[in-house]
Amino acid sequence: MLSEAMYALGAKKSCIRELFEYGMRQSAVVGAENVYDFSIGNPSIPAPQKVKDAFVRLLTERDSLEIHGYTQAAGRMDAREAIAEGLNSRYNACIRAQNIFFTCGAAPALVALIRALAVDGAEILAIAPYFPEYRPFVESNGMRFTIVPADTDAFQISFSALEAQLTPHTQAVIVNSPNNPSGVVYTEETLRRLGAILKRKSREYGHFIYIIADEPYRELAYDGVKVPFIPSVYPDTVVCYSFSKSLSLPGERIGYICVPDCAAESQKLFTAVAGAARTIGHVCAPSLLQLVAAEAVQAGACPDLEAYDRNRVMLYEALTSYGYQCVKPTGAFYMFVKAPDGDAAAFSELAKGENLLIVPGGDFGCPEFFRISTCVAPEMIERSLSVFKRLIESIN
Amino acid sequence: MLSEAMYALGAKKSCIRELFEYGMRQSAVVGAENVYDFSIGNPSIPAPQKVKDAFVRLLTERDSLEIHGYTQAAGRMDAREAIAEGLNSRYNACIRAQNIFFTCGAAPALVALIRALAVDGAEILAIAPYFPEYRPFVESNGMRFTIVPADTDAFQISFSALEAQLTPHTQAVIVNSPNNPSGVVYTEETLRRLGAILKRKSREYGHFIYIIADEPYRELAYDGVKVPFIPSVYPDTVVCYSFSKSLSLPGERIGYICVPDCAAESQKLFTAVAGAARTIGHVCAPSLLQLVAAEAVQAGACPDLEAYDRNRVMLYEALTSYGYQCVKPTGAFYMFVKAPDGDAAAFSELAKGENLLIVPGGDFGCPEFFRISTCVAPEMIERSLSVFKRLIESIN
Repeated sequence: MLSEAMYALGAKKSCIRELFEYGMRQSAVVGAENVYDFSIGNPSIPAPQKVKDAFVRLLTERDSLEIHGYTQAAGRMDAREAIAEGLNSRYNACIRAQNIFFTCGAAPALVALIRALAVDGAEILAIAPYFPEYRPFVESNGMRFTIVPADTDAFQISFSALEAQLTPHTQAVIVNSPNNPSGVVYTEETLRRLGAILKRKSREYGHFIYIIADEPYRELAYDGVKVPFIPSVYPDTVVCYSFSKSLSLPGERIGYICVPDCAAESQKLFTAVAGAARTIGHVCAPSLLQLVAAEAVQAGACPDLEAYDRNRVMLYEALTSYGYQCVKPTGAFYMFVKAPDGDAAAFSELAKGENLLIVPGGDFGCPEFFRISTCVAPEMIERSLSVFKRLIESIN
Repeated sequence: MLSEAMYALGAKKSCIRELFEYGMRQSAVVGAENVYDFSIGNPSIPAPQKVKDAFVRLLTERDSLEIHGYTQAAGRMDAREAIAEGLNSRYNACIRAQNIFFTCGAAPALVALIRALAVDGAEILAIAPYFPEYRPFVESNGMRFTIVPADTDAFQISFSALEAQLTPHTQAVIVNSPNNPSGVVYTEETLRRLGAILKRKSREYGHFIYIIADEPYRELAYDGVKVPFIPSVYPDTVVCYSFSKSLSLPGERIGYICVPDCAAESQKLFTAVAGAARTIGHVCAPSLLQLVAAEAVQAGACPDLEAYDRNRVMLYEALTSYGYQCVKPTGAFYMFVKAPDGDAAAFSELAKGENLLIVPGGDFGCPEFFRISTCVAPEMIERSLSVFKRLIESIN
């Protein structure tokens, strides 16, 4: 008399989590220095000093009831104002505090938003490669999860494939840029073309199609690449943001939903998000973290991205020199590499035999590719390179 | 094309929240000292010093990646062990770390557990007076929410009413003790009788009926009253706990689900809870707070309950001396008082006219009663007493 669907979801560990745990066990057997774990996307650089300072200052100087008390469901108004001002100053946007709803990270932000859009027969579209948790988020709300096959040449968007997947039931398209797992940033040109298609289709179907911008990696971009603010390109966009990666606080569960005024039925959607949040047990986002996030935004705090950048360059240059094919990532902290024989599941197993842990891309919708996390110790990358080299040589 | 159900939930503010916001507005008009706001259950005493010390020590002495990193979905093993040991030392229970699943407070704990029990046609039973959010938690998971009418003499359980509400579809009974809104602690005798009925009915129906023990007020008991540990009385019990009230950290969203080994299908249920948590966007509970909660449990930290106790006694003695009828609360920080004319909605409106804000009990399933929060400033209580007196005199 338990929900078999929930049991199945709990019993099936993600491939990433299984690899990570295998790596921990294997470290005990062969020594941590002989395991090359590229499985998990856990920030490897500490939170910025300004964040640490803000924590301690708030805890020592402010009143306990004020910093630890319940906030409004959407969050403290002063913190929401800080977030809105931060967005406006960077993107010349017109975001008000009333557009911001703080959440316990990006995952419940996505769930609340998806649930707010859950009407009979509705579909949510994702673009491969995509974050695997989108599927349970969509399907557990009774909606159909459909996928646009990947543009494996550039990991932008295959527009013919997109058009083929849009139906009158499409409620929203999830856009994740900088992308997990490809590390690619969608260009403004890509987003404009996407927006034009969605606008045309919205008119054709007689209802709005939203973009859900899932942006935990917004601040992680390299080579001077700018990450476009999607509501400026396509107004019917709702942003789900997380401070997990930008402030190296993944365990602390702080993020927000931004429903801009320009989005269709903005206020009604914001209200529906608040209602949906209630049903998933949202009371407020962690109160101290609301203040820390607001101060970090005001202070322009960001982690030392150079470490990720150096890892990215070292891995990209080494792997491509060995003959691996990979679209050069300019964001996030991942690389998505083509398996030499086109079967990433088999290649990842082969690598596992050498204690090299890489994530096969099947769960991301791209079974020919494997994901490497670049948020790792550079020493481990150096030690791993000979294994990467040996593996491709053994196949070619 | 939005979910009308979610919109409706977002648009309908709780009566408590509306009163609270009215109080804020009215304070600006007549002065804060002339508004007597007993509406909201926000702890009024600071977090214990040991909690503050733990926060600052962890932040200054421990590694950023360790304290702020992702944890396992169920939480850090060391923190789960601390919680299990704390329960074992106090209740002579047999809880293991593997039985503990940290959550972002009691609300998502309840939602994950209820969702794990959501099978076709299932019902969840609550005992009036009950916390109003149970209804959306149950109904949004497609289950029927049914209510056992209150035992208004003692606010224990009316067993004949309970038996009448049990059906072969009953999956679980939610037990909230110390109770919000009555402040009453269910006696061991009450729980034993409840357990005996559920055991008999489980056998009759051919499936287990769980008790969901919603225990955010476990540590808030007065007059030497002991709060029984329900799994020791009825094994098929799952505990949903929160540190919001016991550590005065309501905004921080830290709690746990305990699925003890003695509960039917314990491991399978734990797994289903983990799956259900995924679908509501749970990644992990706030990581720093897991450590703070563990240290607080190990240090036996608890807030200065004397302040709540003094408020409770002052209000109870004054109100009953004026002629109000009220079961003396021995837990939580609420009193549930009978409206002099039996219509708490009308009486609360009357009180609102005098800037006295009390919560009518309709949403708790007891429209004859109103709730008073005793987690308030004692000076406000003193100032309010003449208003309480005048109101009952005006009716009698």
